Amino acid sequence: MTADVEAHCEAHRDAWLEELKAFCRIPSVSTDPAYREDVLRAAGFLAERMRIAGLENVRIEPTGGSPLVLADWLHASGAPTVLVYGHYDVQPPDPLAKWTTPPFEPTVRDDRLYARGVSDDKGPMLMTVFVAEAFLRTVGRLPVNLKFVIEGEEETGSPHFEGSVERLREELAADVVVSADGAMWRADRPSVTVASRGLAALDVTLHGAGKDLHSGRHGGAAPNAVAGLVRLLATLHDADGAVAVEGFAAGVTAPDPALLDTIRSVRFDAGAYFREIGASAPEPLPDGEALLLRQWLTPTLEFNGISGGYAGAGTKTVIPAEASAKITCRLVAGQEPDAVVAAIVAHLERHCPPGYRLETHRHGPGSPAFALDPALPALEACEAVLTELLGQRPVRVAMGATVPIGAVFRRHLERDPVFFSFSTADEDYHAPNEFFRLASFRTGLVAWTRLLARLGA
Amino acid sequence: MTADVEAHCEAHRDAWLEELKAFCRIPSVSTDPAYREDVLRAAGFLAERMRIAGLENVRIEPTGGSPLVLADWLHASGAPTVLVYGHYDVQPPDPLAKWTTPPFEPTVRDDRLYARGVSDDKGPMLMTVFVAEAFLRTVGRLPVNLKFVIEGEEETGSPHFEGSVERLREELAADVVVSADGAMWRADRPSVTVASRGLAALDVTLHGAGKDLHSGRHGGAAPNAVAGLVRLLATLHDADGAVAVEGFAAGVTAPDPALLDTIRSVRFDAGAYFREIGASAPEPLPDGEALLLRQWLTPTLEFNGISGGYAGAGTKTVIPAEASAKITCRLVAGQEPDAVVAAIVAHLERHCPPGYRLETHRHGPGSPAFALDPALPALEACEAVLTELLGQRPVRVAMGATVPIGAVFRRHLERDPVFFSFSTADEDYHAPNEFFRLASFRTGLVAWTRLLARLGA
Repeated sequence: MTADVEAHCEAHRDAWLEELKAFCRIPSVSTDPAYREDVLRAAGFLAERMRIAGLENVRIEPTGGSPLVLADWLHASGAPTVLVYGHYDVQPPDPLAKWTTPPFEPTVRDDRLYARGVSDDKGPMLMTVFVAEAFLRTVGRLPVNLKFVIEGEEETGSPHFEGSVERLREELAADVVVSADGAMWRADRPSVTVASRGLAALDVTLHGAGKDLHSGRHGGAAPNAVAGLVRLLATLHDADGAVAVEGFAAGVTAPDPALLDTIRSVRFDAGAYFREIGASAPEPLPDGEALLLRQWLTPTLEFNGISGGYAGAGTKTVIPAEASAKITCRLVAGQEPDAVVAAIVAHLERHCPPGYRLETHRHGPGSPAFALDPALPALEACEAVLTELLGQRPVRVAMGATVPIGAVFRRHLERDPVFFSFSTADEDYHAPNEFFRLASFRTGLVAWTRLLARLGA
Repeated sequence: MTADVEAHCEAHRDAWLEELKAFCRIPSVSTDPAYREDVLRAAGFLAERMRIAGLENVRIEPTGGSPLVLADWLHASGAPTVLVYGHYDVQPPDPLAKWTTPPFEPTVRDDRLYARGVSDDKGPMLMTVFVAEAFLRTVGRLPVNLKFVIEGEEETGSPHFEGSVERLREELAADVVVSADGAMWRADRPSVTVASRGLAALDVTLHGAGKDLHSGRHGGAAPNAVAGLVRLLATLHDADGAVAVEGFAAGVTAPDPALLDTIRSVRFDAGAYFREIGASAPEPLPDGEALLLRQWLTPTLEFNGISGGYAGAGTKTVIPAEASAKITCRLVAGQEPDAVVAAIVAHLERHCPPGYRLETHRHGPGSPAFALDPALPALEACEAVLTELLGQRPVRVAMGATVPIGAVFRRHLERDPVFFSFSTADEDYHAPNEFFRLASFRTGLVAWTRLLARLGA
């Protein structure tokens, strides 16, 4: 049944690639208000593309932040209903100087398409619309009732997504939820993700004097906000780099034994890992299993940025009045974002050096960790399609990153989403030179065709 | 003899103020190559103004960096020769958002002129040219042989000044060297500066992975350059904020007992100090004498800026590949800049966390501390003029800031410069909203008139 659809996909793939490039030219950076108009433009582009595909009830739904884009096709009577999730917003492109070609001028090199957001999540998400179109133009119908909920705030922790899903729970109700966001673990090994870490984010600012001061006149006497901040931040980890915040790991439950089995079986190569990320390996080299455990199943506290005082060329003999750092934590099963942020803030208050004023600012509600029911039929359908297409059974993996939607769909639609994304985790999607493998674009179109057919069978 | 000259100054003061404003409109920021043309424009403005004043042999002298501006008037046969030092370059204006009026649009408010560089050192320096003009237009001659050496790199540690003075030692030879740079200690208490701290500057960069990484996928496993840097920088001071670098204070000699006497006599109010700088006072409140000792006679290691990762609005879930900090040290008598930088670099190498690559970059040769011969006749001349004009004998003070020229003139001209500046240390000259008191402009013109007359007598 899917041969015609697959042939249609192949025939239109080049044209669709051009459309994907046009989508990627829109800098829909959700975290920075300067890009607000572009975020709205991306929602409009997507909605228009859905209408062209033949989807129905396409609309841009306000949320209080970036809008959702909704659509459906509900004429497969007797067949199950599948809800597809994805997002049209992207990470900021900084640091711009490190891009080989500009982030919003999509460029193909070596069978890869380079652009900010192409892997996360514009490519993997837009493919689902193309596949729906392929069904409708060839066989005239879809094998399932299909619904789309595509958000525009994933890169800022989806602050309005949960409220929207709660409000639209009847309209979004489905038998199966499939996420086109997420990522294959490695390019050389098919995988399905069955667990992801949660997220909590906050900014820390330390204030010293009321204004920047001359480091000659005041040096040694006045508070230096950078000095205070580095001393304060250095207390957040111990000498081994483990998080040293009292109460941070409160409630953490034991990891799923199946994932521990995977970690043991994949023989993760620590030396190769440090080479791959371009870092000098620490001495002694950590054990591969321990390193993968830290990536998948250990909570983190990472500094995403720091700033204060003068950062231009040359020197400026100033004592900075304030300095700030951005922190995000990845959470594991059992940790609550509220409790984690509260523990960090309490730690910071306890360790704030005398003579400084501490200010903290939390970003969004965060998201707890997520783990899928291992026996979920939709998970098995995904695995069957990948096994058939790629010639080997995918390994079940955890993901260090966060897909806050896991908890949201469970809570409000009573469905656990399966992750069926053709992004790969090495595609630099939060770094310069983000790319999407065109091989994944080709495979993904066929895979989605077969997954919808299988779910409808 | 000086009454006519003083009357001329008073009559022309308003016009001169307009000329000072024009000078301050030129953003001659020496530390940032982006302002290179403006630095040259400022040198041209000054040279032209010197020609108009009637000075001779005016020329712009290349140095390898920003040029010197030189001029003289050498027709006071039998009278001593006085060399005036100053600088026409300015600090960067950042952070721009904190300026009430733009830094390069000079504005008078409350009998103060606000502009970047107006207090340090365009106002105090340009006044000496005006006073020379006043002598030449009224009495037709100067009471001394006068030479000017005005540099354009003071704010970057005067990297080419020493070489230039050495090369021009015969042309610059003088009996007395007077600096129009420096600053009165406090607005309410006339002072002359007899010692200043030295300077050494370096940047520290820590490299982790080869590129920024996704904090979800890699968090907990990859090196985080911000985390490494804060841990490294936190080792540079002990818990009391004292510098904890082995060898940092090597060679430090005991402070001048006369300055210790001043420190005891001025009853420095620690509580008032923290209120003045807008900082919450640390508990327990440090002793006033100890605080002043830290400002004047204690070596420092200050962070002038820190940067790494994402610093924009919202969040970006990235693990920064590199992070940097800018450091300047103030040195006291006996410390050598080379040895201090070497001690810091050795400390950083010793404490660099495993898995990171350390890079350090030194700015310029730095400058040792400076102390004036307490019996220098030119110092007594300065004190006499100030006593006569301000009604009280100025107190001799040390200055926490650095005037690298002290050591330069001593070494190559065999003269110790006296500081005769009408800038005041609270005029925010390395911070937003730098200003120059117009009262100091008025007083300074008369004071320079009388100082030249007294030195020529």
